[in-house]
Amino acid sequence: MFMLVCNDKLCRGNATAIPWLQSSDIVSLRSHTCGELRPEHAGEKVALYGWVQYLRQDLFVILRDYSGLTQVLISQDDGSLKEKLGELTVESVVKVTGTVRRRPEGQENTNMPTGDIEVLAENLEVLNTCRKLPFEIKDFVKKSEALRMQYRYLDLRSTRMQQNLRLRSQLSMRMREYLCHQHGFVDVETPTLFKRTPGGAKEFLVPSREPGRFYSLPQSPQQFKQLLMVAGVDRYFQFARCYRDEGSKPDRQPEFTQVDIEMSFVEQAGVMALVEGLLQYSWPPELGGLSQPFPCITYSEAMRDYGSDKPDTRFHMKLVDISEVFVNTKIEFLKSALGQSEGSIQAICVPDGGVWNNVFNFVLAVRPEGTLKSPLSKHLSPSDTEGLLGETRRPLLGKLRLQCAELLEARGVALRDPTAFHFLWVVDFPLFLPKEGEPGSLESAHHPFTAPVAQDAHLVYTEPLQVRGQHYDLVLNGCEVGGGSIRIHKAAEQLHVLKNILKEDVSVLSHLLEALDSGAPPHGGIALGLDRLISLMVRAPSIRDVIAFPKSFRGHDLMSQAPDYVSEEDLKPYHISVTWPPAKTEEK
Amino acid sequence: MFMLVCNDKLCRGNATAIPWLQSSDIVSLRSHTCGELRPEHAGEKVALYGWVQYLRQDLFVILRDYSGLTQVLISQDDGSLKEKLGELTVESVVKVTGTVRRRPEGQENTNMPTGDIEVLAENLEVLNTCRKLPFEIKDFVKKSEALRMQYRYLDLRSTRMQQNLRLRSQLSMRMREYLCHQHGFVDVETPTLFKRTPGGAKEFLVPSREPGRFYSLPQSPQQFKQLLMVAGVDRYFQFARCYRDEGSKPDRQPEFTQVDIEMSFVEQAGVMALVEGLLQYSWPPELGGLSQPFPCITYSEAMRDYGSDKPDTRFHMKLVDISEVFVNTKIEFLKSALGQSEGSIQAICVPDGGVWNNVFNFVLAVRPEGTLKSPLSKHLSPSDTEGLLGETRRPLLGKLRLQCAELLEARGVALRDPTAFHFLWVVDFPLFLPKEGEPGSLESAHHPFTAPVAQDAHLVYTEPLQVRGQHYDLVLNGCEVGGGSIRIHKAAEQLHVLKNILKEDVSVLSHLLEALDSGAPPHGGIALGLDRLISLMVRAPSIRDVIAFPKSFRGHDLMSQAPDYVSEEDLKPYHISVTWPPAKTEEK
Repeated sequence: MFMLVCNDKLCRGNATAIPWLQSSDIVSLRSHTCGELRPEHAGEKVALYGWVQYLRQDLFVILRDYSGLTQVLISQDDGSLKEKLGELTVESVVKVTGTVRRRPEGQENTNMPTGDIEVLAENLEVLNTCRKLPFEIKDFVKKSEALRMQYRYLDLRSTRMQQNLRLRSQLSMRMREYLCHQHGFVDVETPTLFKRTPGGAKEFLVPSREPGRFYSLPQSPQQFKQLLMVAGVDRYFQFARCYRDEGSKPDRQPEFTQVDIEMSFVEQAGVMALVEGLLQYSWPPELGGLSQPFPCITYSEAMRDYGSDKPDTRFHMKLVDISEVFVNTKIEFLKSALGQSEGSIQAICVPDGGVWNNVFNFVLAVRPEGTLKSPLSKHLSPSDTEGLLGETRRPLLGKLRLQCAELLEARGVALRDPTAFHFLWVVDFPLFLPKEGEPGSLESAHHPFTAPVAQDAHLVYTEPLQVRGQHYDLVLNGCEVGGGSIRIHKAAEQLHVLKNILKEDVSVLSHLLEALDSGAPPHGGIALGLDRLISLMVRAPSIRDVIAFPKSFRGHDLMSQAPDYVSEEDLKPYHISVTWPPAKTEEK
Repeated sequence: MFMLVCNDKLCRGNATAIPWLQSSDIVSLRSHTCGELRPEHAGEKVALYGWVQYLRQDLFVILRDYSGLTQVLISQDDGSLKEKLGELTVESVVKVTGTVRRRPEGQENTNMPTGDIEVLAENLEVLNTCRKLPFEIKDFVKKSEALRMQYRYLDLRSTRMQQNLRLRSQLSMRMREYLCHQHGFVDVETPTLFKRTPGGAKEFLVPSREPGRFYSLPQSPQQFKQLLMVAGVDRYFQFARCYRDEGSKPDRQPEFTQVDIEMSFVEQAGVMALVEGLLQYSWPPELGGLSQPFPCITYSEAMRDYGSDKPDTRFHMKLVDISEVFVNTKIEFLKSALGQSEGSIQAICVPDGGVWNNVFNFVLAVRPEGTLKSPLSKHLSPSDTEGLLGETRRPLLGKLRLQCAELLEARGVALRDPTAFHFLWVVDFPLFLPKEGEPGSLESAHHPFTAPVAQDAHLVYTEPLQVRGQHYDLVLNGCEVGGGSIRIHKAAEQLHVLKNILKEDVSVLSHLLEALDSGAPPHGGIALGLDRLISLMVRAPSIRDVIAFPKSFRGHDLMSQAPDYVSEEDLKPYHISVTWPPAKTEEK
């Protein structure tokens, strides 16, 4: 009879832990990071790992890691160390063991958190030599965005990018804590290989191994979050990867992240209170406090006062209708404007910045056909003016308001506080809009699952264009950072909207309609655009500055050259072939 | 001069909060969940929202939400309430306002956490009526998996699925806390629209709008995590969505989640210690404690003792080579086995369960050509035997060991503790394996970025098949739940492996090779399979039981019918067309 005793043993590789190290870190080989040594460590033996930031006077190595810099002193008496120093290149990775000591008096560097100490090297080991790089890893070195993207792994070494990525991680974690621990939300992952949604022209396709059948990468987990409410999950959230194929757009990414939230048994006020609490809880203290509740205006107020549904409320300069003042005017262009149906005269109130001596207020005559007459015109380039006139009337004034602000700021008027964060809710949007290019047809202003405002619910059957939706947008400094709604939870209402108003093929949403008929609770939610939110928080010029590996505006990964050509052989399992455009076959 | 004061106001929809409610929840309309009322709430007015679980005796409504059940009593004196009760259907969603009271003595239900109270309804409002469902939402009702998947939003209402999703969320949150707060990890999101990797035959393709160019959905963020180390991020983690197109596999999903971890300046022992700490920190207390460190065996020990590189160590029954004992045997089949080169006689030691009176030990004669002679044979079906013989020799014995265990357990021997969790590290895997079907060629046992064990590093250039890799697998109860390695961090070594050993086209990985040459730190990491890990924790028969919306084994979403047919019009922007297989064109 053979009965062996299990003789499992520990065999964890050849750990080279240094016996005299006092590190409390069970994981790492280093004793300290490059940012943590202080005078109280003087006399301690340490092992530091990092990148060579600078080499100074054939004497010092400035070592860098994510946490900071430490000065390492190479003794001139140690020939072998001196030799190693001579061969060292910047950005090489080294291990230094040595002893911490206070810097000699007068040599402290008060700009450096570790500036009171240095490490006297006993040994220096080059772990990896760095080649000559395409650009220096110094924060003051300017480089083109294309170069930054091609060598993103170098670009990410910059202080700014390190801070942005770390802030993003910390903010996400705080948001999760608030949702999970304070409000009992459940983090549920939903599929990204799904089915095309009606009107999903911006959805990437993924061929399957079944001829003619494709998955689709959804623009949001909208259907799944609603189904989770039907499933009784009660409170759901997810940091959801979303996909949108818009071709080339300068500041959009084909994949992006939204903080996706949905709740049962809630009304608009509840979702708004939750989001205010979420942002207050997770807001980095160094950015200043957020006062609550956030201001809230209706869509029509926003359009009236700011000519925009995402007004920048860091400055006033509201639009004011002054047609009444000029009702008996003799000034020809004003008279002519007012003489036309829906003609009006609007003013933008600008602060007296003393920059335009004679023009404290811009008086604008707006004609229904969309032409503009204003003393401001001479300050605008022809292309600006043309761009403005391409807009419909209120957005035209809204853009003009922003252009005024930019002009004033360019001339030195302190209009918008660059450290201010102005959150704003915009509510009571129209539920439907006339469909562009198809007179008589309607489309959803946001999406077909938004419930009407209770008082307008009966109008859905009679005057759908008059219906306001229970939709809310969250705006920060003039940018939309979130949007959500209370959803339709009754199958009959949803069917009416899809079939009779939007004329959609309801068969593709039959599972959702069935779900609403299976005990769907009243529910609503919101999605926050994480990339956009963080880019505003860190005042980055582009969302690409808060994404580790972004795509170019053409959707390319400039580092790996994705998307790439694929052989016909590799396409075969998916039963697809490339239809080369006639003029470009030679590229094949 | 027009200078208006901003008159932003609060306009948060028509909140219907009930003034007498004392809810501390700023978000929800309810005063309490259905699971929280206790005798101390007696006398309180409450507002409950939930699903009708049962209707009893024309008197009681049992209301359910995620947190539990509450009994609601409908007064027989209130005609309008009685009428509503009469029309109520199970799984409809209702709102009940009323007063909490102790149940009359003797009517308490000790099986129900709220069983000491009931709510005397003052009002009952039906928020959504439920149709007749395809199956009852009762835990004891058995339904086919296909039906569960088609109506997943109903299936998720079961106690078990609610628990699984919530455990998953809690475990993930604990893991994040450990990584972020205890060890300074940075959560970094990496792209899923990437480029095909060498040998990436299992990667889904995503057509772009540029003719012939495709993105690829990567099987893991392997390249990005290494690039983040080159970028100085130091410690990275991500709950990463990964994609693998394997066609139809019963317990695989085309998209799955891995807890992806990478660290700089670390050795194998550090990664293993981190993961042990991670699991101990996040392990649900109700599953019992985890003792640490986890046992660890080498790959060759695992193959020798268990015939498997992922041994189930919940039971012994190791394989023992007893060839020596039979060296002079007269028994024909044993003699013949030993007479052949590499022939051996192995025993599996089984506990005396008294189930097979005459066979306490299985004696197996294994011949090099893979035939098997054993008294066990008569207990195996022909297909079992055939399956076993399809294996090479050690895995054959390993499978036989598992089959023995199953046979014993089927006969009532308590072999494996169903509540036990046996974690095990397996280390020292071979770095390369002979490529199947291509004699003389090698392939990576895991992936081409794994570093060799230090003592074997010189053999990479001379005897690559003898090299052990710094790879570690984490095994739980005989299932692989994680795998990782220390990576090659020098460009020259990586180039040698890719070009000279694996004969890969290195141009597709030129960006990675350049990155390794730009100051790459020593680094390593691991990926844990979250779906698999959680399914083992909750002892689910399939990973589909811990995923909210899984695909069928054919990769279909049975609820929405994804993947679906797409019109030729919708394929045009992507410059692809379907190549219909000749026999199936009529399906088009």
